[in-house]
Amino acid sequence: MKGLWLENNQLQLRTDIPIPEPPPGEALVRVLRAGICNTDLELIKGYYPYTGIIGHEFVGVVEAGADNLINQRVVGEINAACGYCRFCRRGQPTHCENRTVLGIFNRNGAFAEYLCLPIENLHPVPENVSTDAATFTEPIAAALEIQEQVKLSKDDRVLVVGDGKLGQLIAQTLALTGCELLVVGRHKDKLANLAARGIKTGLVDTVTDIYFDISVDCTGNPEGFSTARRALRPRGTLVLKSTYAGNLSLDASSLVVDEITLIGSRCGPFTPALELLATKQVNVEKLIDAHYALSEGLAAFEKAQTKGVLKVLLEMN
Amino acid sequence: MKGLWLENNQLQLRTDIPIPEPPPGEALVRVLRAGICNTDLELIKGYYPYTGIIGHEFVGVVEAGADNLINQRVVGEINAACGYCRFCRRGQPTHCENRTVLGIFNRNGAFAEYLCLPIENLHPVPENVSTDAATFTEPIAAALEIQEQVKLSKDDRVLVVGDGKLGQLIAQTLALTGCELLVVGRHKDKLANLAARGIKTGLVDTVTDIYFDISVDCTGNPEGFSTARRALRPRGTLVLKSTYAGNLSLDASSLVVDEITLIGSRCGPFTPALELLATKQVNVEKLIDAHYALSEGLAAFEKAQTKGVLKVLLEMN
Repeated sequence: MKGLWLENNQLQLRTDIPIPEPPPGEALVRVLRAGICNTDLELIKGYYPYTGIIGHEFVGVVEAGADNLINQRVVGEINAACGYCRFCRRGQPTHCENRTVLGIFNRNGAFAEYLCLPIENLHPVPENVSTDAATFTEPIAAALEIQEQVKLSKDDRVLVVGDGKLGQLIAQTLALTGCELLVVGRHKDKLANLAARGIKTGLVDTVTDIYFDISVDCTGNPEGFSTARRALRPRGTLVLKSTYAGNLSLDASSLVVDEITLIGSRCGPFTPALELLATKQVNVEKLIDAHYALSEGLAAFEKAQTKGVLKVLLEMN
Repeated sequence: MKGLWLENNQLQLRTDIPIPEPPPGEALVRVLRAGICNTDLELIKGYYPYTGIIGHEFVGVVEAGADNLINQRVVGEINAACGYCRFCRRGQPTHCENRTVLGIFNRNGAFAEYLCLPIENLHPVPENVSTDAATFTEPIAAALEIQEQVKLSKDDRVLVVGDGKLGQLIAQTLALTGCELLVVGRHKDKLANLAARGIKTGLVDTVTDIYFDISVDCTGNPEGFSTARRALRPRGTLVLKSTYAGNLSLDASSLVVDEITLIGSRCGPFTPALELLATKQVNVEKLIDAHYALSEGLAAFEKAQTKGVLKVLLEMN
């Protein structure tokens, strides 16, 4: 089968990859559509060691291994857990000590014609959700993880720093809580997407006040972190929602003096993410900048790395 | 009056300081005893800009300004709040935007014969608590702040990194929760204090397992932070309980991947701290390494800066 294979920081289109055979408990999924995420861009820059097929945001059709899902469109949670380690036993499978992660760690990913995942990772896609839209289930779930970790109320003043793909989804999910929300970024056109949905936006330099109860850094760069930190009131909470290249240097004493809480936030719940898509409470269409065939995968990556581009989707079939 | 005066990173014993006159709402306190804290040592190293009398851990006797406390022994909360800013109004006076802090920020401190503090900051010392012991009220309150911020249960595995003054008080207060506690440090004799109270201890290099639900860094140095971080399970909580000289460099991506929470922690509640002293649930006698007269204050600071020395107390009268 065809697939985008990463090896020694080189991404290549291969056509000689064997179609995988699902081990017991796993399903064979024919991939329909997949989205390129910033993590994929970081993988090919070599930020994490990985060899194999990359890609983890996908929609596919089950072809084998899961009788009750055959021929259904599915999305899949990306962490494949062992089921018996102490984190699995305490109900934290996304932190399984022995986990593999689709297209990220020890498990071939979604930028290929087929993939395998444990049956329990799969979620059927509601009929009224388009295949394009459903590829956003994984990042919407990641956005919703914030609300799993931090209790939000209508009185909370929340700042989102970053107007990229993830920042836009986070902003949309946070807006649904009714909190007092401001999203700041560097791209007027991207911010306009959110403003059109009634979300308050601004350029990043306009944040000068120590005002916010909660801030979310979706930039993964030190400037974004710094903006999110500065804007917090004492005892505020800063959610780290993006990985950072290299170490981050921060003023830890000021975290102590102001009793700030930092929370790292990663994968989230798929069921409410699919519900938000089915009920059209989150709009993803405006985040799609381009479609490419899998055979044009290398060009798709070039496009995805272009400044200002949001989501690039790969079409497998 | 006599006092230890800091100016341009130079500590001097002055004898010409006027006895302060308490403004309305404040009391004049004749200081009996005061403790040298690491923050004092950092102030004279110039980590924070400050000019004036230093010192913030004290016991004194009220001489004027608070009719119902005249001639009583008192301890005092160190943050003097404005009472009307948004943080005061939301019940967070220790984060008051306009606060002064005893011997730390814009307010003369306790290493002198007299000090002033707002009446509402003062707490009478129970009769059965010695003056020496009561000087530990402020750091015990700071230790208890951890339990105000993090819900602890008997099932929690808690690591304290650092066997210094604050680490020892934190260990003792955490042990009272019944949690599964380990304290690690670099000083066998200091750890022995805690082991004698039935607390599990170890040398810092013995922490190799990713095991703990909560860790507390009381060292304020990057190695201590790193030990506290490495020992945490995914979704664990790291409490920053000490200030750090300069910036701290950390792997923020690993905080995201493991969904770690960092919490800065500072001043805490005096009432339960005094209760722990009155009921002898916390032992402070073994933490006292020396007494000096105020007139020997410079020698006292030299002693306090000696490696391995715990608390040094100043006697004013």
